[in-house]
Amino acid sequence: MSAVIKVNLPSESYDIAIAPGNLDKLGAQMASLNLGKKVLLVSNPAIFRHYGERALNSLKDAGFDVTNCTLGAGERYKNLSSIQKVYDKALENRLERSSTMVALGGGVVGDMTGFAAATWLRGINFVQVPTTLLSMVDASIGGKTGVNHPQGKNLIGAFHQPRLVLIDPQVLKTLPIREFRAGMAEVIKYGVIWDADLFAQMENCDRLDQMRYIPESLVQTILERSCQAKADVVSKDEKEAGLRAILNYGHTIGHAIESLTGYRTVNHGEGVAIGMVAAGQIAVELKLWDEKSQERQVNLMQKTGLPTKLPAGIDIDAIVDALQTDKKVKAGKVRFVLPTQIGAVEITDKVPSDTIHQVLQQM
Amino acid sequence: MSAVIKVNLPSESYDIAIAPGNLDKLGAQMASLNLGKKVLLVSNPAIFRHYGERALNSLKDAGFDVTNCTLGAGERYKNLSSIQKVYDKALENRLERSSTMVALGGGVVGDMTGFAAATWLRGINFVQVPTTLLSMVDASIGGKTGVNHPQGKNLIGAFHQPRLVLIDPQVLKTLPIREFRAGMAEVIKYGVIWDADLFAQMENCDRLDQMRYIPESLVQTILERSCQAKADVVSKDEKEAGLRAILNYGHTIGHAIESLTGYRTVNHGEGVAIGMVAAGQIAVELKLWDEKSQERQVNLMQKTGLPTKLPAGIDIDAIVDALQTDKKVKAGKVRFVLPTQIGAVEITDKVPSDTIHQVLQQM
Repeated sequence: MSAVIKVNLPSESYDIAIAPGNLDKLGAQMASLNLGKKVLLVSNPAIFRHYGERALNSLKDAGFDVTNCTLGAGERYKNLSSIQKVYDKALENRLERSSTMVALGGGVVGDMTGFAAATWLRGINFVQVPTTLLSMVDASIGGKTGVNHPQGKNLIGAFHQPRLVLIDPQVLKTLPIREFRAGMAEVIKYGVIWDADLFAQMENCDRLDQMRYIPESLVQTILERSCQAKADVVSKDEKEAGLRAILNYGHTIGHAIESLTGYRTVNHGEGVAIGMVAAGQIAVELKLWDEKSQERQVNLMQKTGLPTKLPAGIDIDAIVDALQTDKKVKAGKVRFVLPTQIGAVEITDKVPSDTIHQVLQQM
Repeated sequence: MSAVIKVNLPSESYDIAIAPGNLDKLGAQMASLNLGKKVLLVSNPAIFRHYGERALNSLKDAGFDVTNCTLGAGERYKNLSSIQKVYDKALENRLERSSTMVALGGGVVGDMTGFAAATWLRGINFVQVPTTLLSMVDASIGGKTGVNHPQGKNLIGAFHQPRLVLIDPQVLKTLPIREFRAGMAEVIKYGVIWDADLFAQMENCDRLDQMRYIPESLVQTILERSCQAKADVVSKDEKEAGLRAILNYGHTIGHAIESLTGYRTVNHGEGVAIGMVAAGQIAVELKLWDEKSQERQVNLMQKTGLPTKLPAGIDIDAIVDALQTDKKVKAGKVRFVLPTQIGAVEITDKVPSDTIHQVLQQM
């Protein structure tokens, strides 16, 4: 089992390589990309303990001159102070414009390493080795990089495409269950917005709540089809001018919930899951899609062990207010991605505030 | 007298508009660019006192919803803390992806505003209104943005093209003499690397050491031909892969001198002037150009009131060592831009350390 998915962009193209055991091929695969000798590997302490040595050895065996640094794990470390640490390491090791930063970790490590690579010497090479399901199917593809502002997620950032995304499904074995489920939220998203067949294949699997219950072949399919969906959308709209906005399905309300719970109580995937349920229900209220499809969406979410209700005690007015500071706001209007059937969505800025309030109150 | 110079890039193009009185036309010129309503004007306290109100009024009259903020003046404020101030203001005023940041000031304000615009919401619109000669002919064109790392200039940054560069030569009347001369260093650079006729026109002017001795028509010519030279080079090489490197003539050693004197004793233009004299002398030693051309270069620099010697007490070994951390280093080799005749240069990484040492010791 192995696949290579091509991301074709006007300015540059790159591969997403998916295969068990890929981690040990990192150096060899990078060697074919005509990069400079110097590599800075960025990770977090836990991931580095599991996989750092294998990654470093693979790079050294391929002839790279490698150093590494680790950043605190979690959204609360996703800030400019962590970026400063990467800059200091880059300076210390005299990284050049032809050098490469490699992100070994989840979305937080990937977004920060990408932002550091985007802004060091006005942009150096960047390779993604995602180690969580969420970052494999979402964060590592598409070139979005950045850090949080104390008052809002990902407000600071840049577009910077990786030269390679290398995925090894075997590293998911050490992923905590809650994080696995968070990644599945994005996979279900691809089913709803783009790939009805992927959605159906997951419906047909008996258990989805833990990785170990899912056949290896379905894991490979989930990774391939999710990456393909994201690559399709990103290739058609690199800078998020239009189509790419559909990837934000569930994210408008999801981000608000994450932010209001301080990025701790509710993680990104859980926020997105709740946001998809809310968006689906808004679509039902606006008669854009039917109750049966919404029921299928909620059921698949529940089978995966994802939340489908608002966290207890959250202030609904605060959610609606937070929507206004979201990046997706245009001319003061909140844009929603709403499903019309399993596998298709539309974008609208015509959702009445009353409908948002009403749907959230019933959750 | 007025000129519009087009900068044509693969992804986008923009105008450099040069005319006396342009400051009052800022709003009108931006109105034709299809930008969002919200504008954040960034400046420094002194420039804002001189020209802030005119700029704000022009923007308001054209229907923009404008706020402003000022950052400390000078290289020592060119850091991530200043950028954070801009981010906070952007959040407070809820800037959107269609919004615009306008830089009103010199290179420091321009580079920082550009970097904030490049990294806020992963990139919003950006307009340059340069108020120093240096930023008019150099920093405001080409899309380089960034801040300093405590250990090196401009190490942190991004490429982000402005939507418009608006130049009003009249604002140069309030420019301190020393800063005017610093700008002239870059103008002389364009003469040496690209435009022998511009060089000759300046040689033919009796005095160049103060703006008030230069005929208005020559000021307009200096601005037009310098901007045209930079636009030509940048259009051919947006991301500094090849040709654009010639713009670094004088900058390799210049940056090292600026850095070693703490960005205060020697300003950017003065550093570049000394760097050009050094590069010229290295070229003489390597028999790439003749002593007579070097003499013409030194004379023009002296007529402008620019330094042509190293600052007293500077450590030559430290200069040579600092060259190693320069962004222009490739595979550990320092690349030099060396003149071959007035109006033409070549790039080489084959300058022996001994020659660098020897030339610097004689300065």
